Amino acid sequence: MGSVHASRVTAVRRILARERFDALLVTHLSNILYLCGFSGSSGALLVGRGRPVLFTDGRYSIQAREEASDVRVMIHPPSLFTAVGDFLRARGRQRVGFEPAHLSVAQAGELRSVSGKGIRWLPAASVVEDLRAIKSPQEIALIRGACRLASQVFCDVLPQVKPGVRELELAAEIEHQMRRLGASGPSCETIVASGRRAALPHARPTAKRLRKNELVVFDLGVILRHYCSDLTRTVYLGRAPRKIREWYRAVGEAQAAARQALRPGAATGDVHAAARCVLEGHGLGRYFVHSLGHGLGLEVHEEPRLARGQKRRVELGHVVTLEPGIYVPEVGGIRLEDDVAVLFHRTEVLTDAPRDFLEL
Amino acid sequence: MGSVHASRVTAVRRILARERFDALLVTHLSNILYLCGFSGSSGALLVGRGRPVLFTDGRYSIQAREEASDVRVMIHPPSLFTAVGDFLRARGRQRVGFEPAHLSVAQAGELRSVSGKGIRWLPAASVVEDLRAIKSPQEIALIRGACRLASQVFCDVLPQVKPGVRELELAAEIEHQMRRLGASGPSCETIVASGRRAALPHARPTAKRLRKNELVVFDLGVILRHYCSDLTRTVYLGRAPRKIREWYRAVGEAQAAARQALRPGAATGDVHAAARCVLEGHGLGRYFVHSLGHGLGLEVHEEPRLARGQKRRVELGHVVTLEPGIYVPEVGGIRLEDDVAVLFHRTEVLTDAPRDFLEL
Repeated sequence: MGSVHASRVTAVRRILARERFDALLVTHLSNILYLCGFSGSSGALLVGRGRPVLFTDGRYSIQAREEASDVRVMIHPPSLFTAVGDFLRARGRQRVGFEPAHLSVAQAGELRSVSGKGIRWLPAASVVEDLRAIKSPQEIALIRGACRLASQVFCDVLPQVKPGVRELELAAEIEHQMRRLGASGPSCETIVASGRRAALPHARPTAKRLRKNELVVFDLGVILRHYCSDLTRTVYLGRAPRKIREWYRAVGEAQAAARQALRPGAATGDVHAAARCVLEGHGLGRYFVHSLGHGLGLEVHEEPRLARGQKRRVELGHVVTLEPGIYVPEVGGIRLEDDVAVLFHRTEVLTDAPRDFLEL
Repeated sequence: MGSVHASRVTAVRRILARERFDALLVTHLSNILYLCGFSGSSGALLVGRGRPVLFTDGRYSIQAREEASDVRVMIHPPSLFTAVGDFLRARGRQRVGFEPAHLSVAQAGELRSVSGKGIRWLPAASVVEDLRAIKSPQEIALIRGACRLASQVFCDVLPQVKPGVRELELAAEIEHQMRRLGASGPSCETIVASGRRAALPHARPTAKRLRKNELVVFDLGVILRHYCSDLTRTVYLGRAPRKIREWYRAVGEAQAAARQALRPGAATGDVHAAARCVLEGHGLGRYFVHSLGHGLGLEVHEEPRLARGQKRRVELGHVVTLEPGIYVPEVGGIRLEDDVAVLFHRTEVLTDAPRDFLEL
């Protein structure tokens, strides 16, 4: 096992010992990837005292042994959870944790009935997610790579942003460019929303053509070497009215205030509040309808959440999006999103696309 | 509600009455889409005697009312399952079915604790999936559209398939072309696997360049108006050796035999066996390592499964893939996949890309 994976497994074992669990059954695929390197679409990893055991199916027998070189790989012919249950039944009495958010009722039923009464199944929520929230310098470097790639894609596509082109065409162009630059794919649905459609926070790109004197919101992210980025920029087609420029400036100030507030020990809810407070000062509070941001890493949405009332503290090694936005019905929307790492004594903005208001 | 959705909801109610359930909580997103038209990424639909109730969050308040025009939409601020639980608690004693494969243990726990002791939760597996397996003529027309689009993409990309081009570049080109032709995206991971990599049934495209005298497997599908297609073609770069041509012919014969066997009343396992038998007759049985095919519709993998030993019967309105393949380690692979609808007295092949062996 790579030493990275070995130390992550050790961290899990420490938590298991504290909770007096004999093992943890990991079923969330990005947790499995984090702990042993396996990136297939079906599997379960059992972490106990001995060598971790990865259960997967025949399609992945070669890939599992290549990627997860130091776990024991078990190929289950009939069903994943029957194989896990059989394996555990032979072990005798054990207290085994499972991931309640990543195991269906049907899977849990199969596991319980096959593993028998000797196995006591106990919910163990967020054990691996909490470890994943704190990124190592190597992980931050990987996320930085994904952020740079997304920034590059946005800059490359900018010359094609002009009246007459369709939202869908631009979205297709963005995703094509991601692939060409080496991404394995988009990390989330690519958004190109123009005019009134920009007032919908989760607008899907449509056949609508861009027009002069409209706002256009671009929200895009890539997966590169398994790590995600997430970037939003808003541009104006033509020369923007003064009010739009003022709004854009307000959103930028809100983001800057959030970045100031983002320091180890701060409550994540207070980081959200810092951005909100700026927008309220500009009389725009009611147009900021979502939360400020979220952690990102192997998944594009992970811990911590930067949202109203969240008590969790910011920690060194957190990587989060800061994405304040305002959505004005019938007019349009402005959102600005960057990915930021929390380092010693400072934060680092990983996305490097220009943040100035672009009037095209 | 569109009459289509109304009749589907009526079919669910009939099953509920038979099982003496008061309601069914639908949590699988493609089942929700099927029953009411809502296509958001978060929601739950409660189907009982009255008007169905769709629970979703604020991002989707406009979209939900547009798409699911005749259900009652409830926007839950705190949490989806708390909202459902609260709603049911107010209803008094009820027997409510849930989808055990599409509800996590954590969600089930939240539902149980919020809804209180009056609600008896009962697993109701595959109620909607079984309805969905039988496609209406309108649905077959939509799948046909997705199949034609995938076929068109394959034909459009063919001129670029030549020695020197990278697998990843072709995969990016394929997905770009899908979008340009109007697909909302790929229905599954696009595969371009050349040379020895073609011997891996689930090879991801890599930076490997295509070379002369290699087999290249293309597996691609699109989502168009919510319906999926799935298409595989194998080509040879150069003039193929006689053995490769014989193998290709054998795979084609296996597919034709499966199509012959695909008739209402046949066991799905026997359709698989028909293809397998042909390959065994050619001495290629041990290279056919997966099952013959699967249903497709709103999802790219759904009921029925065409696999060894399956007892379920083929029915009118089934739409399935027929995708026999052989994988010869160190040499390469050949797979041929078409999507086929089971109609009165005949089957219709919906994918219309050429099936002849192409030597490029």
